[in-house]
Amino acid sequence: MIIVGEKINSTRKSIAQALEKRDAEFIATVVREQAQAGAHYIDVNAGTYMDKEEVDYLCWLVEVVQETVDLPLCLDSPNPKALSEAIKRHKGKPMINSISLEKDRFPSLLPVITSQPCKVVALCMAQTSMPRTVDERVSVGSELIRKLTDAGIPIGDIYVDPLVQPVAVDKGMGLAALGAVQKIMNDFPGVNTICGLSNISFGLPNRHLLNRNFLALAMGYGLSAAILDPTDTKIMATLLAVEMLLGRDQYCRNFIKAYKQGRIAGS
Amino acid sequence: MIIVGEKINSTRKSIAQALEKRDAEFIATVVREQAQAGAHYIDVNAGTYMDKEEVDYLCWLVEVVQETVDLPLCLDSPNPKALSEAIKRHKGKPMINSISLEKDRFPSLLPVITSQPCKVVALCMAQTSMPRTVDERVSVGSELIRKLTDAGIPIGDIYVDPLVQPVAVDKGMGLAALGAVQKIMNDFPGVNTICGLSNISFGLPNRHLLNRNFLALAMGYGLSAAILDPTDTKIMATLLAVEMLLGRDQYCRNFIKAYKQGRIAGS
Repeated sequence: MIIVGEKINSTRKSIAQALEKRDAEFIATVVREQAQAGAHYIDVNAGTYMDKEEVDYLCWLVEVVQETVDLPLCLDSPNPKALSEAIKRHKGKPMINSISLEKDRFPSLLPVITSQPCKVVALCMAQTSMPRTVDERVSVGSELIRKLTDAGIPIGDIYVDPLVQPVAVDKGMGLAALGAVQKIMNDFPGVNTICGLSNISFGLPNRHLLNRNFLALAMGYGLSAAILDPTDTKIMATLLAVEMLLGRDQYCRNFIKAYKQGRIAGS
Repeated sequence: MIIVGEKINSTRKSIAQALEKRDAEFIATVVREQAQAGAHYIDVNAGTYMDKEEVDYLCWLVEVVQETVDLPLCLDSPNPKALSEAIKRHKGKPMINSISLEKDRFPSLLPVITSQPCKVVALCMAQTSMPRTVDERVSVGSELIRKLTDAGIPIGDIYVDPLVQPVAVDKGMGLAALGAVQKIMNDFPGVNTICGLSNISFGLPNRHLLNRNFLALAMGYGLSAAILDPTDTKIMATLLAVEMLLGRDQYCRNFIKAYKQGRIAGS
C-alpha cells in the first residue's frame, strides 16, 4: 500500500503561516514526522494561493522537502504552470496530482507530465459533469488510462482516483467509488488506484472513524494507494491491520513491529 | 446485517458462575444489554459442560432468555441431544449453530434441524480435514447448501460459516475466509453467510482492532451476519459505519441515531 502523506497543504492554517514566513524548519518537521510514520510520498499543495504565488510556494516546498527527506513528492495542483516549474526542481520521479478529462485540463497538463518520467493521478472527473455511478467512473478512468498510455506513460505509473463523494449526499457514493476501484483494477492489470478519504464523511459526525473504515473497505476492493495523514495512529492501525488481514504481511512482521514501536493506536 | 450476541457463553467465567448458581437475574442483565445494543439473536453456549449438564443448562438458558427479551436464540452446540431438547422449549424460530460435514455430525443433526422451522449455521468443516483455501471452503459450503436444501430447508434460512482461522498461523487465512464469503454469496443467491471474528486475531496483539477491521472487510465481501459482542461500542461503530458506507443506511439515519444515543465509540 502506497501512502501519500497529506499534511503539507496550505488549507491548513499552520502550513499557510509557515509558507508566508518561509519557515523551512516548520515544514521540515511536518515532513519528517510523516516520513517516520511511513509515508512513501510527501504531498505538497499550495492551492489556496493564486498564479505566481502558488508557483513560488510549490517550488519552495519541493526544495525544502527534498532537503529534509529522501522521498519523492506528490505535486498537488491543477495549475500547469505551477506543476511545470515544480517538476523541474524535483529530483527523481514525482507523482503529479492530478490530470482529468475536464475541459482544457488534459491537453494543458499532458506536455507537463510527459516532459520527464513521473507518476500521475488520473481523476475520474469528466469533461462536463461529476460522475455518479460506477460505470461513469469506469468510463472516465478507462479513457484516461487509454489516453495516458497512448502518450507513452507506463500503466504502472498511472494512479486512477475514482473521485470519492460524500455518503451524506447520496448513500450510494461509497459503493460507487469502491465498485470503480474494483473494476478498474480488474480491467487494467498493472494500473494503480488511489484516493483521498475525507470526502466520504463530509457532513457526518465521527469523521475519522468513517474515513478509516472506508480505507479498510477500499483496500478490500483493491485500492493500492491512499492520500492520508500517516501520523494518525488510528488510520495507520487500520492500514497495517488490513494489509495483514489481506495476506500481505509475511509472518505479521510489519504489524507486530509497528505495534511494538507504538506506531499504531491501541485496541 | 444480522447481529448474533455472543456473550452468553460458559467459557466466560461470569456466565459459568451464573449457570452454576442458576442466577437468572445475572443472565437476564447480560441478555438485556445485548438486546438494547442491537442484537437480533442471543447466542447461548454451555459447551464447557458435558452430556446431561449441557442439556440442562442450555434448556434453562432458553427459558431465562425468552422470559427476558422478545428475541430468538442462537442455540450453539454440536450436541444433538442438547439441541433437540433446547429447540423444543424455544418459542419461535431459533438459529442452530452449527451443522457441518464432519463424521456423524450431519446425519445426527439433520433430524433435529428439520423437526421444526429453524435457521441453521452451516460450518465449512469437511468430513476429514480443516479447509485451507477458498475452493475447499466453497466446496464444503456448496455441499452443505445442497444437502440442506434437499432436506427442505429454505436457502434463506442457511447461514454458511466459512470457518475463520488465524492469520498468525497462515497469512492467507483472512483472504481464504473472505473469498469464500464472496463466492458463496455470488453462487447461491438468497443464502446468508456468518462468522465469528475473534479466531482471525488469535496469537496477535491488538485483537479487538483486528477483529473489527476483519468485520469491515468481511462486510465488504458480502457477509450478512456476524457473531459478536454488540455491547462493544467500537465494533458496533465499525458495523454501523460500514453499513452506511456500503449504501445500506438511508439518509445515514441509523448511524446518526446511534451516534446521538452514544451507542458507538468516539472518533
